[in-house]
Amino acid sequence: MSYYLGIDLGGTRIKIGLSDDYQLIEIQNVKASREKGFQYNMKIIVEAAVGMCSENEISQYDINSIGFAFPGLVNSKAKKVIATNAKYNDAVGFDWDKWAKENFGAAIYLENDARMACIGEWRHGAGVPYTDLIVITLGTGIGTAVVMDNKLLKGKHFQAGNLGGHFSVNYDGRLCTCGNRGCVEAEASTVVLKQLVSNHPDFSTSKLVNLEEISFNNLFELADHDKVALDVRNQCLDIWSAAVISYIHAFDSEAVILVGGIMNSKDVILPYIEEKVNELAWTPWGKVAILSADLNDSAGVIGALHMAQKI
Amino acid sequence: MSYYLGIDLGGTRIKIGLSDDYQLIEIQNVKASREKGFQYNMKIIVEAAVGMCSENEISQYDINSIGFAFPGLVNSKAKKVIATNAKYNDAVGFDWDKWAKENFGAAIYLENDARMACIGEWRHGAGVPYTDLIVITLGTGIGTAVVMDNKLLKGKHFQAGNLGGHFSVNYDGRLCTCGNRGCVEAEASTVVLKQLVSNHPDFSTSKLVNLEEISFNNLFELADHDKVALDVRNQCLDIWSAAVISYIHAFDSEAVILVGGIMNSKDVILPYIEEKVNELAWTPWGKVAILSADLNDSAGVIGALHMAQKI
Repeated sequence: MSYYLGIDLGGTRIKIGLSDDYQLIEIQNVKASREKGFQYNMKIIVEAAVGMCSENEISQYDINSIGFAFPGLVNSKAKKVIATNAKYNDAVGFDWDKWAKENFGAAIYLENDARMACIGEWRHGAGVPYTDLIVITLGTGIGTAVVMDNKLLKGKHFQAGNLGGHFSVNYDGRLCTCGNRGCVEAEASTVVLKQLVSNHPDFSTSKLVNLEEISFNNLFELADHDKVALDVRNQCLDIWSAAVISYIHAFDSEAVILVGGIMNSKDVILPYIEEKVNELAWTPWGKVAILSADLNDSAGVIGALHMAQKI
Repeated sequence: MSYYLGIDLGGTRIKIGLSDDYQLIEIQNVKASREKGFQYNMKIIVEAAVGMCSENEISQYDINSIGFAFPGLVNSKAKKVIATNAKYNDAVGFDWDKWAKENFGAAIYLENDARMACIGEWRHGAGVPYTDLIVITLGTGIGTAVVMDNKLLKGKHFQAGNLGGHFSVNYDGRLCTCGNRGCVEAEASTVVLKQLVSNHPDFSTSKLVNLEEISFNNLFELADHDKVALDVRNQCLDIWSAAVISYIHAFDSEAVILVGGIMNSKDVILPYIEEKVNELAWTPWGKVAILSADLNDSAGVIGALHMAQKI
């Protein structure tokens, strides 16, 4: 029997999955400490993965191969992190083969995290029926990955389809952490939510004033009873819709799959974006399917396990 | 000896090229009458092409094959116009094979006009050194076409890379003829130039007031001496730059080639967009080449001749 690890390193959580040739054995969810840097988190990962192995009565050296989802631009061929956007910057230059070999005696496949989530949904989730799709991860930032003609889109420098969060939807808009202006991520993501809310002219009268932390979850919850929450929610939905339409125009996708904790509110998000896309996207062939992820938060780790088994 | 026709049907001009196996014989430029509909213009094309043949002492039935560039979405496999955007709407459903056979006894290859211009530049112009590039036609509207990994990008429904003019760069912006909001084409193209200029608060003091028609050519000419012209010119350059950055983020292109009469002002346009792209695009691998077309207005007809020879 062969065993596989799938690892999805996020800014706040690390997900680690263990499987054999036939089935998923377990997924563990570990706290990331982004502020302590990349190397520190890699140690946490080894510790947790070794623990998972021994709980399941296998040795860490029984791991055949590892799929690793990293939050930054990745050259999957050379197994290198190309660039990060203010997250785990010290991962550029890291020797992934060495790390996998020394700690697990295993081979490793490294890929960008949105691409891994895309692989997960495309091979095992909501994307199974489609040959051309885009996966959008809505979280602290916004990530995208694209499948065209049943192949993961990579591009000359491994960044095609990966930078949908950095399409400008407002050419004169907010400065993004990437340096560009009016990126989707800079206009409507968790990073800027507090600013969006506090810039609303009626902010002082809003229930949001009393909250210590403003998340999309409480924004969506309050929207039915609070004008500021409703306005900002709709503004974000309009921005995501505009972005989704540009993605469809770019990649000619037949399906769009949204991933992230925010999809708890999929009953509001999906029909809103679907209506905008039906009305505004130029798709004379028919209607684009607007879907929420089947695997949701586990899409990345399932994608990583899928690729580990393909090495 | 085999002979080939390349035809580029535009909104105001039709370009017709004639070549043999070895060289271009002639390109003629004929006035289009868009308002008289598609069928009428197809008759003009036959008349002009037959005239070119007889001037060159060949029969119209000596034409081996035809490449045809059409201004709308095209299914090149089924040889069908999928959709038009308020231009030659009666071309949907037209039988291209029949037309080519009846008039010239020839085979035909039909493709979108921006894609044909892209083929022209990629195979015979400024795009020759590149495997991954985007061609942008700046004219009445804005068209795009993409080459990735040395292949023309088509997509599931033949519209991938073709709708760059309809990426929203201003999600709350102007209504576009396509129905979407804030499209590049709706924010900065010849169609909206008059509005952009007359909306400027200082319009009444501008030299542009006295012009009967406002074109990008006179906007660029006046920009050194007229604040309104300068402001609107820079606004358009900012919008095009934001769009170019989104295209690069989408398709991971190593080169961007700009086509159109407006490239008479390439000494202003290229360095402006280049500076913005260098500053704002996320390309850790290096710098994207920002180029003007080598074949310029003939890119489409040269691309059409190239494809005619490939049938």
